[in-house]
Amino acid sequence: MTPRGEKDEAEVVSGIFKGKTTGAPVTILIYNRDVDSTPYEELKDKPRPGHADYTARVRYGGYNDYRGGGRFSGRITAAYTAAGAVAKKLLGTIDVETLAHTVQVGSVTLDREVTVDEIRRNVYANPVRCADPDVAELMMREIEKAAGEGDSVGGVLEGLALNVPPGWGFPIFDSLDADLARMLFNIPGVKGVEFGSGFRAASMRGSENNDQYAIVNGKVVTTTNNSGGILGGLSNGMPIKIRVAFKPPSSIRIPQRTVDLAEMKETVLELKGRHDPCIVPRAVPVVESCIALVLADHALRIGAIPQVLKSEH
Amino acid sequence: MTPRGEKDEAEVVSGIFKGKTTGAPVTILIYNRDVDSTPYEELKDKPRPGHADYTARVRYGGYNDYRGGGRFSGRITAAYTAAGAVAKKLLGTIDVETLAHTVQVGSVTLDREVTVDEIRRNVYANPVRCADPDVAELMMREIEKAAGEGDSVGGVLEGLALNVPPGWGFPIFDSLDADLARMLFNIPGVKGVEFGSGFRAASMRGSENNDQYAIVNGKVVTTTNNSGGILGGLSNGMPIKIRVAFKPPSSIRIPQRTVDLAEMKETVLELKGRHDPCIVPRAVPVVESCIALVLADHALRIGAIPQVLKSEH
Amino acid sequence: MTPRGEKDEAEVVSGIFKGKTTGAPVTILIYNRDVDSTPYEELKDKPRPGHADYTARVRYGGYNDYRGGGRFSGRITAAYTAAGAVAKKLLGTIDVETLAHTVQVGSVTLDREVTVDEIRRNVYANPVRCADPDVAELMMREIEKAAGEGDSVGGVLEGLALNVPPGWGFPIFDSLDADLARMLFNIPGVKGVEFGSGFRAASMRGSENNDQYAIVNGKVVTTTNNSGGILGGLSNGMPIKIRVAFKPPSSIRIPQRTVDLAEMKETVLELKGRHDPCIVPRAVPVVESCIALVLADHALRIGAIPQVLKSEH
Amino acid sequence: MTPRGEKDEAEVVSGIFKGKTTGAPVTILIYNRDVDSTPYEELKDKPRPGHADYTARVRYGGYNDYRGGGRFSGRITAAYTAAGAVAKKLLGTIDVETLAHTVQVGSVTLDREVTVDEIRRNVYANPVRCADPDVAELMMREIEKAAGEGDSVGGVLEGLALNVPPGWGFPIFDSLDADLARMLFNIPGVKGVEFGSGFRAASMRGSENNDQYAIVNGKVVTTTNNSGGILGGLSNGMPIKIRVAFKPPSSIRIPQRTVDLAEMKETVLELKGRHDPCIVPRAVPVVESCIALVLADHALRIGAIPQVLKSEH
Repeated sequence: MTPRGEKDEAEVVSGIFKGKTTGAPVTILIYNRDVDSTPYEELKDKPRPGHADYTARVRYGGYNDYRGGGRFSGRITAAYTAAGAVAKKLLGTIDVETLAHTVQVGSVTLDREVTVDEIRRNVYANPVRCADPDVAELMMREIEKAAGEGDSVGGVLEGLALNVPPGWGFPIFDSLDADLARMLFNIPGVKGVEFGSGFRAASMRGSENNDQYAIVNGKVVTTTNNSGGILGGLSNGMPIKIRVAFKPPSSIRIPQRTVDLAEMKETVLELKGRHDPCIVPRAVPVVESCIALVLADHALRIGAIPQVLKSEH
Repeated sequence: MTPRGEKDEAEVVSGIFKGKTTGAPVTILIYNRDVDSTPYEELKDKPRPGHADYTARVRYGGYNDYRGGGRFSGRITAAYTAAGAVAKKLLGTIDVETLAHTVQVGSVTLDREVTVDEIRRNVYANPVRCADPDVAELMMREIEKAAGEGDSVGGVLEGLALNVPPGWGFPIFDSLDADLARMLFNIPGVKGVEFGSGFRAASMRGSENNDQYAIVNGKVVTTTNNSGGILGGLSNGMPIKIRVAFKPPSSIRIPQRTVDLAEMKETVLELKGRHDPCIVPRAVPVVESCIALVLADHALRIGAIPQVLKSEH
Repeated sequence: MTPRGEKDEAEVVSGIFKGKTTGAPVTILIYNRDVDSTPYEELKDKPRPGHADYTARVRYGGYNDYRGGGRFSGRITAAYTAAGAVAKKLLGTIDVETLAHTVQVGSVTLDREVTVDEIRRNVYANPVRCADPDVAELMMREIEKAAGEGDSVGGVLEGLALNVPPGWGFPIFDSLDADLARMLFNIPGVKGVEFGSGFRAASMRGSENNDQYAIVNGKVVTTTNNSGGILGGLSNGMPIKIRVAFKPPSSIRIPQRTVDLAEMKETVLELKGRHDPCIVPRAVPVVESCIALVLADHALRIGAIPQVLKSEH
Repeated sequence: MTPRGEKDEAEVVSGIFKGKTTGAPVTILIYNRDVDSTPYEELKDKPRPGHADYTARVRYGGYNDYRGGGRFSGRITAAYTAAGAVAKKLLGTIDVETLAHTVQVGSVTLDREVTVDEIRRNVYANPVRCADPDVAELMMREIEKAAGEGDSVGGVLEGLALNVPPGWGFPIFDSLDADLARMLFNIPGVKGVEFGSGFRAASMRGSENNDQYAIVNGKVVTTTNNSGGILGGLSNGMPIKIRVAFKPPSSIRIPQRTVDLAEMKETVLELKGRHDPCIVPRAVPVVESCIALVLADHALRIGAIPQVLKSEH
């Protein structure tokens, strides 16, 4: 879906020996080869609306790398995904799995509950990463429409973590939901995070929102999952369910008003080139990875995954 | 609005000398005097739906203090508010102000934009902490109705931070929004956090959601504030706007299904006594404080507030 | 040995329920009842040589609590010892033990190796906390001599940790020795920390200082312990041996030159009252505790002590 | 002095743009090109005495990179020095300077006080990094003698920080001396760290060790510097003086007893090749850098160096 020709080649430069992690930090380099900085020189003094151009310039006194948004670019998520690949392996040793799928693109929403099987089967089979192929079709059209108008659209992802044992989390202040939210808000473009019934809980009654307990196959479960798998900042053994709202990408072809910061006067900005009209599909592996990173960290801290796996020696 | 007779008396036991902070940690004690633990003994093995009883028991191997939810009780927010009072004083030295107000209780929503003046004038003048007195009236009825039925309702608060200079925040991973979200999710009952247009951004076009730049009185501003005052994890000088969703309180008189964990069998739970039917109004000073705590911390870290104020000596 | 009449009464105000820790922070209060601040008002502008009076005043812009050195007083070590008592209990669950004993007071040094048995038996049986009763006698006289002259003496403690399993530590930057040193330098009066052969290693040959390996009872051991039980920042299974140098207490009756900071002129300071002529004996439980705190923290982080002990429920 | 042919070529891959730091992390890569791992395969199961081979193997379950000690090698200090170069630039903006020089090699000690001028002039003019050329000569002979016998020698460095303003440090637990010691103990081979009079303070009287105050050119100074520039964990404006003890390098040609961990039997180890007979001279820039790193960090935290230098834009 992205028209930019970035090849994500990852080079591991430390922490792996004979195909296994050594205990030393794993350093993974992903070079940004697409570095024609010419177009950005023109933009240097004209902050693009919605981007971090203005805030970065103020924060770093004008010394920031303004080419393509520098460190504020969504490209940072390539690193999240690389690290997430390691985290997923760790979680895999205790059967914890993280998933994500697109549930909204612009005005198109996935209105039904999808099964985990549908997610596993369909998400990577269509370019918008939706678990329902028919809805995926509508989402693609929504994106194409926006793109055709030189505009962009936002959307919502649902992230899931399955088989997380009950009792993970460190309240106060490293609650599981707090740490997950923190990580997710470090993904560029995220404007909202909710767990379980989330904002809908605001209009619910306690009798409706409380997840009541039952015993199934000798295990304590809840009969609903409005908590999203987290109670009091601790996992309760049910699937962790998170919804993440992404804004429409800020780069659009439609002219926008901005300011020339060198001359301190108002001006109009027209971005050229092709831009990603919707970031949501590309964010699916990123959200999976970010959830995995937080869970792996908690698993190691709480001792759910031993720091040293059984040696072969 | 809360029927429980807790007197919040705070005792400062360190860090203050001659009415000023000394640089040593400020320790504030708020004793919980309401400690009849008898009712909780009955509940010991029967986790209350929606509460952290079950997760805490698992997390701490049954050694957790189960009386009134122990450390998972909303009473922890008294400490947030006490600490927030100090943070607000710090922020006050550079004219940064934090506010919060109720924008939804159950099905009653505040549908119009209110002014900062209305918030300052009205919020603490009605028990639901709504900036519009008429809507406040409806919210109170919503709460009373739920209470009358032995039930509870959720709601939404809006938090604001005014006069935050542009450029605050430490990306990656201490973005201003990430740190604010993390703190807010450490408030018991919070299920969702969004900045600016938040989840609404998902259905917006980029041309609509991007905040365009203008110059007003020689200052760079945006003509809308869909970003909620944060771009790329950094403040942009506009008001920081956050919406926080609270679930309905978990303690309700309506009988609920739970599990007897000692005997591992399903059972029914009937909570006695009076319970807080809506936590939202009480959360207003808490959200104000949590925002202030994060901002004061960032202000000190970035040097926006000097670590040592001008000495009188 | 201390002439000051401080009663160390500790009050636990959180984190303990039914005699067990709950997983919430354990807060222990030790009130300082000896608070006649009158003598300190005179000293307010005249920093006592060797104390933190001057540096604290500069650091905190004169707002610091100057009474008795405020937070810079050795009284802070009462808190270390209280926390250390909890850490020792944790370590006790896996048979790790921490010890400390006085090996030097002024010109009197303990020149022979003492056994762990001697340390356990003798240290708390004499007021200077020396494992050799005869040397203890000489140390006491050294202290009395200094006290009689209105002066003070320094000394050296040896700290030990027994039964630490091999492999503890997080290099780089949470090496076990680095973390231990950091904690020990947070004890007021500490001016030097060394592990194993320490500064003596500087004049040794590698062939002499290297601890060679052997197998004893099926276990890998070293035949000497010049490393002090730590190699590459990781425990090697041998006793951890640390020596900690304490300076002579700064409060002495002998007149000293100082500066009147209010009038910025040189002056002479004569301290009245009785002062502790040697801090070393009082530091023995403090060093034991500080070592225990670091080890317990590492044990929890590395998973050597489970975060939740087997539940009785 | 090192016979190993390592070329330290540093490649900056992030954080620099147009010759200035951008605010993003500065990543510097120093590849280890000298990677003939054949000799290490033989050593795999036979831990070299004094090295971290055994502890690393236990810590990481045998998955550690055992080639050349892996991450435990002194080569890590190339990274400290690269980072230190950035820290020194930061400190240079406020005229803070860090220095180090060799004061002991084996039995040869520099017994007189040297001036800062001598250090600046002579240290990098002789291979042992001693400020006194005559003593340097003796130190070189000491090293050659040990090398000729297939052995190694230890030594002591003195580190200095000049022009540090009074009041730096964050007690408790980020005292300036505690943080410096922690960093220094993360240098491979360090066995002792002392400030000012250090271990000598143990045999001193308070009247002798206390640094008395005077006023010189309108500035508060101390007439001696037994504190090493730090009182109560805070800088006092005098030069920070630290002594760091290094053990003799563990790699020696003399045969040593060790254990074959695969077969769990005792054996003898004979290391081939040429080894560094004394690490002390090579540690001089490392100690300078480590002190600079801690001070720069404190300077930024306390606001002594602004986070954003004056923009040229």
